[in-house]
Amino acid sequence: MTGQSKTRPVSRRRLLTGGALTVGGAVAGAAAVIAATGSGDQSGEPAPVAATAAGTGTGTAAGTGTTIEAFHGPRQAGVATEPQAHAAFVAFTLHRGADRAALGRLMRLLTDDAARLTQGRPALADTEPELAVLPARLTVTFGFGPGLYAAAGRDDRRPPSVAELPAFAIDRLQPAWSGGDLLLQICADDPLTVTHAQRMLVKDARPFAAVRWVQSGFRRSRGTQSPAHTQRNVLGQLDGTANPRPGTPAFEQAVWTADGPDWLRDGTTLVVRRIRAELETWDKLGRADKELAVGRRLDTGAPLSGQHEHDEPDFSALNEGGLPVIPDFAHMTRARVTDDRLKILRRPYNYDGVPDADGRADSGLIFAAYQADIDRQYLPIQRRLAERDLLNDWITPIGSAVFAVPPGCEAGGWIGERLLG
Amino acid sequence: MTGQSKTRPVSRRRLLTGGALTVGGAVAGAAAVIAATGSGDQSGEPAPVAATAAGTGTGTAAGTGTTIEAFHGPRQAGVATEPQAHAAFVAFTLHRGADRAALGRLMRLLTDDAARLTQGRPALADTEPELAVLPARLTVTFGFGPGLYAAAGRDDRRPPSVAELPAFAIDRLQPAWSGGDLLLQICADDPLTVTHAQRMLVKDARPFAAVRWVQSGFRRSRGTQSPAHTQRNVLGQLDGTANPRPGTPAFEQAVWTADGPDWLRDGTTLVVRRIRAELETWDKLGRADKELAVGRRLDTGAPLSGQHEHDEPDFSALNEGGLPVIPDFAHMTRARVTDDRLKILRRPYNYDGVPDADGRADSGLIFAAYQADIDRQYLPIQRRLAERDLLNDWITPIGSAVFAVPPGCEAGGWIGERLLG
Repeated sequence: MTGQSKTRPVSRRRLLTGGALTVGGAVAGAAAVIAATGSGDQSGEPAPVAATAAGTGTGTAAGTGTTIEAFHGPRQAGVATEPQAHAAFVAFTLHRGADRAALGRLMRLLTDDAARLTQGRPALADTEPELAVLPARLTVTFGFGPGLYAAAGRDDRRPPSVAELPAFAIDRLQPAWSGGDLLLQICADDPLTVTHAQRMLVKDARPFAAVRWVQSGFRRSRGTQSPAHTQRNVLGQLDGTANPRPGTPAFEQAVWTADGPDWLRDGTTLVVRRIRAELETWDKLGRADKELAVGRRLDTGAPLSGQHEHDEPDFSALNEGGLPVIPDFAHMTRARVTDDRLKILRRPYNYDGVPDADGRADSGLIFAAYQADIDRQYLPIQRRLAERDLLNDWITPIGSAVFAVPPGCEAGGWIGERLLG
Repeated sequence: MTGQSKTRPVSRRRLLTGGALTVGGAVAGAAAVIAATGSGDQSGEPAPVAATAAGTGTGTAAGTGTTIEAFHGPRQAGVATEPQAHAAFVAFTLHRGADRAALGRLMRLLTDDAARLTQGRPALADTEPELAVLPARLTVTFGFGPGLYAAAGRDDRRPPSVAELPAFAIDRLQPAWSGGDLLLQICADDPLTVTHAQRMLVKDARPFAAVRWVQSGFRRSRGTQSPAHTQRNVLGQLDGTANPRPGTPAFEQAVWTADGPDWLRDGTTLVVRRIRAELETWDKLGRADKELAVGRRLDTGAPLSGQHEHDEPDFSALNEGGLPVIPDFAHMTRARVTDDRLKILRRPYNYDGVPDADGRADSGLIFAAYQADIDRQYLPIQRRLAERDLLNDWITPIGSAVFAVPPGCEAGGWIGERLLG
């Protein structure tokens, strides 16, 4: 019915103004694209303020929406950043013919707009600039998947561990949630901010790549609980207790790449696995069995051998029956890493799709793990878990993708320059 | 591979414990379903605190997650409640044979669990009780669709206006987003809280009804901006400026049913429309044309005749060319209602699905309008908009459903009792 006029903004304008182009022109003069925070001032949305070092800036009295995370720097934001409440993982398949020059143009565009949006400024061609003024700790983190290097004529510089993961017996991978040449991890404490940034950046990428998959996830909203408190996943478990802590030497060693290809120094690698929670059968387990499967208490997150969440687990502890208090095949036992250099940083988000007609949930975890090297750190853990982990009966990997995360850049530079420049 | 054992918790327990049932038993003793906030105390999640009358309670120092909205009372919560950041609209189709007695059992179950969950207590058969302790202003609002009354043998008490809306020329309705016998509007400031409440309540409904559709939506996260500030939708517009304000006589008259069927007194009616935003073509419009289509400035939300958002629009104002400053067919002009009794309460949420491979967004508005009477209040507005509204070229209704929202209940009662009891 209206298809004809949709592609004809000029006739639209004539309709709007009764044919008098002067009206549209006059208003347009006053409505030029707003400056960085000009609109904000008028609408009670103050200018952005920097987050504290710990990422816990509370913004102004008007709200936390104006809190910003720095974009420029030697390392990309969104890794060591305290996880924001909302995330979109957007994976692209490069169009045929997207060569190194094209990729350079793409990454310049994306870097420029990500830098703007994260600082509370509209994208260069922002069509809804007012949606850009509340960044809410927005970060945009770029990852380069296995196929990008050959497309760029740079396959010799592909980090060896950035390759499709080996098949695991527990996997039920679906192509719809797997792979990808380029990834954008877009995180913010506000969902509308994530939506807007995603749309602007997807528009930038369109001439170069197709959207392969998008996974949207969430954690507790900012302010719901103390940031220091470990979050729960949809299975009800505290999730992330064993993570290395940003700012510690252990974190530095585990996360940031110090060896490997030169262009990846101060970068990292990312594994994204979509892990479906088998809530129907999980619901049938008693609490005791759930806790044995995980190795931790559900209420406090304490290891079954201890009292508090961060107590050191005692794998030698026996119960009155002479059996291990923490089962040998509990998830915690199998996932455990004691060498700081071999730990991974888990930065997961929950997902919740639409239940089916019978009311069965489509829920689970967008498991996102950062580590300096996938082969050395992620794979040994994953092999142990895939081989035997009591929790495996209630979780199913249905998507898998790996990316190198290039170092950050300074103002004027762009992400991936050392590889594609 | 693991399908066999998934349905056999006993053999699972044997595996976990190496066959020694005493272990499971011993731990189970200590892990009985937690009391209301017992777990919270242990895990640093304090007991819930009541929201202030204005719904702006800020919880404890540990976070706003513990803020509660009252469940019991003469009117259901979730209507006059300051809109929470996240919502799930869950519509059900009653199973054949779900008669009045069955509906009574269903509503008793749902009422009981909604009362618990909204107060930060686990559902009666909660399988993840720890996920219940941070209600984050959770409300659950029940609606009865057109088909429920006949199923209950009460079609004579169906409010006349609770019937499928007439077809409008602008509609492109999809069955997947339309209709429904029973609705749950689940809102909270935290997305994990919504997810958990949804899952528990859907489980309650399973023996009685199939899930027909679920629409998940969001507004600005709590704390992102001042609660007093009007929110923006995905088109970038301030949305909700003309709403009646809770606590005013205008709100009372517009929203709560004073006439109609006796059982609906202190109830209201709800229209849920899924309205797709045609962002591809909206993007091609200039700012001036966007503002003319809406009748308001994009930055401040002020009517084109004024300076500030809440300025009274002057429809007689002419520009230098002698044309109306606010077009006769602007959305604001067409939607405008001056009689307080005929206004509607818009309580919309944004939605954002997965873009297609070409990067075209699947975004829009879950338009939710509350009014005492659909025929008297909603329909005249909708007819004017459907007939002519400049904005129609950039928005498309793709889903439609209507519900009566019964009055609230006191402790010991249940929602819908006056109709189904």
